Amino acid sequence: MRAAVLRNGEMVVDEVAEPVPGAGQVLVDVLACGICGSDLHFVRHGRTMVELAADAMPMPMTLDFDRDIVMGHEFAAAVLEAGPDTVAPASGTVVTSIPVLLEPTGIKNLAYSNDYPGAYAERMLLSAAMLLEVPKGLAPEHAALTEPMAVGVHAVNKSGIKPGEAAVVLGCGPVGLAVIASLKLHGIETIVAADFSPARRLLASTMGATEVVDPKDEPAVEAWRRVDGRHTLVIFEAVGVTGMLGAAMRDAPPAARICVVGVCMEEDRIIPFHGIGKELNVQFALGYDPGEFGATLRHIAEGDFDVAPLITGTVDIAGVPAAFDELASPDKHAKILVRPRR
Amino acid sequence: MRAAVLRNGEMVVDEVAEPVPGAGQVLVDVLACGICGSDLHFVRHGRTMVELAADAMPMPMTLDFDRDIVMGHEFAAAVLEAGPDTVAPASGTVVTSIPVLLEPTGIKNLAYSNDYPGAYAERMLLSAAMLLEVPKGLAPEHAALTEPMAVGVHAVNKSGIKPGEAAVVLGCGPVGLAVIASLKLHGIETIVAADFSPARRLLASTMGATEVVDPKDEPAVEAWRRVDGRHTLVIFEAVGVTGMLGAAMRDAPPAARICVVGVCMEEDRIIPFHGIGKELNVQFALGYDPGEFGATLRHIAEGDFDVAPLITGTVDIAGVPAAFDELASPDKHAKILVRPRR
Repeated sequence: MRAAVLRNGEMVVDEVAEPVPGAGQVLVDVLACGICGSDLHFVRHGRTMVELAADAMPMPMTLDFDRDIVMGHEFAAAVLEAGPDTVAPASGTVVTSIPVLLEPTGIKNLAYSNDYPGAYAERMLLSAAMLLEVPKGLAPEHAALTEPMAVGVHAVNKSGIKPGEAAVVLGCGPVGLAVIASLKLHGIETIVAADFSPARRLLASTMGATEVVDPKDEPAVEAWRRVDGRHTLVIFEAVGVTGMLGAAMRDAPPAARICVVGVCMEEDRIIPFHGIGKELNVQFALGYDPGEFGATLRHIAEGDFDVAPLITGTVDIAGVPAAFDELASPDKHAKILVRPRR
Repeated sequence: MRAAVLRNGEMVVDEVAEPVPGAGQVLVDVLACGICGSDLHFVRHGRTMVELAADAMPMPMTLDFDRDIVMGHEFAAAVLEAGPDTVAPASGTVVTSIPVLLEPTGIKNLAYSNDYPGAYAERMLLSAAMLLEVPKGLAPEHAALTEPMAVGVHAVNKSGIKPGEAAVVLGCGPVGLAVIASLKLHGIETIVAADFSPARRLLASTMGATEVVDPKDEPAVEAWRRVDGRHTLVIFEAVGVTGMLGAAMRDAPPAARICVVGVCMEEDRIIPFHGIGKELNVQFALGYDPGEFGATLRHIAEGDFDVAPLITGTVDIAGVPAAFDELASPDKHAKILVRPRR
């Protein structure tokens, strides 16, 4: 089958082996898959990510970069065929899933894997037990956004923010935008969003930000002081580059909470006294749990999250390498979808 | 009156002006005052601390380092004389107080101040409204430890640790020891304490640590894995030098909380991904509130906290500069008390 492959540090398009469903697995036809910023990062810093994950993550990645890797972990797909002794939805049922496979030896990554191709391919394997049916009437393109939106849902849950508190969201890429949508759903009335890109600021307003700023003109926390300044502040760091956490700690008002949802892969510098003097709390957040993933799919289906504006481009498999290049300039795009059958 | 003075970056002993109580103030006779690690730090890095406080603290310090500063903020004292129109306890009553003065223009630091001498002096001023009477039968030497013990009480409260969770305490100086005593009072059953100094490890056991380790031989989190390894872990960083927070984040198990109570005044480096991958929470803690301070005094009076072992030396005012030097080697001392009338 055709796939966009990470091979020798480059994204290339090629034929790869057809996956064959084993017991408990289902072969699915990929309908749509979002390109995630983590995938761009993985092309450049994959080895570092794997090393760091070995130190830091409950489920370390084991990967051989000399072998092909087919990424793509934000997907919707149609059931084709169940493996032996496997109960699965009827052929043609549209499904999504947390991007992992259950194996007798434990939970395995798909996409960040040499063994299980992700959704930058025509077909892939999923675990029957993990499948979530996409509600009828919900376009697969929108269902594919369950995964990135769930990251925002989880970060907001993890932050413990409550109605009556205010939020600042630093960075309006897909993660920041998902955080904003989730904050709105949580009933947060003051949501200040900051991004250098005018297009992303516009999207932030569309998703529910009540104030948007260009940090070049006004620091986000200053903008919060201007429009609110009195409720407890929760700052969401959704950029994930060095210096952002330190700046958030420097700018935060006393007793603020900072939720780090941007994934900075490098060593970073902070001034601890900024945290100490103001008694800040820093909560790091990653991923989501199955309950949050399922709830996110329902929120999209029910229109609580309008994800359509997030889709700023669509490509077929042949277009994936160029899309990776294009996403490097954040002004133009939020989410590019891969539709293998387009 | 006689005082130990910070003058031109050195601790010297000299006569300073006799304080005169104004309205709302009480002149007190200092009975005992603990020497705090922050004071040692202030001698070396005072200007940096003041700069950082301006950025980070709700109540910035305003200080002129070209003028005398009399430090000392962990004290018990006897009432001598009330200022005009001031209701105060009877002369001779033993009192302590949070080390601040109430003024019409706001709350002012004492000790870290050019205007209000701290307790490295024969006499000092306190606000009548802030006074806490030391319960009869409690030695002033022990009441003077209310302040550093309150720091531990506050950090433990701020960490949100609950019975059934486990604690690791990095550093067994006075702050770490106060944290350990407070953890024991909270009913925490697993308290692993780490310090390079055998004397401090012994004190840690005395205060309630259930396991003590020399980090040279066994990292503290490894020791926790050995003795417990299954309850949610809260790590208290009570050293306050660069590298400690980063190491705690590296070593922490998934979903651990880190409470930073050591005061690191320099820029520090962390690897954010250690926090992200394990969804760590970092809570910075500073000081205490009036309720915690009062509760700490009661805990000492009632024997919930046995502070006697913490006192490893006593000096008079003339001995303060040498005591500052001696405290630079942490192996020998926990708390040195200044007793001006000794």
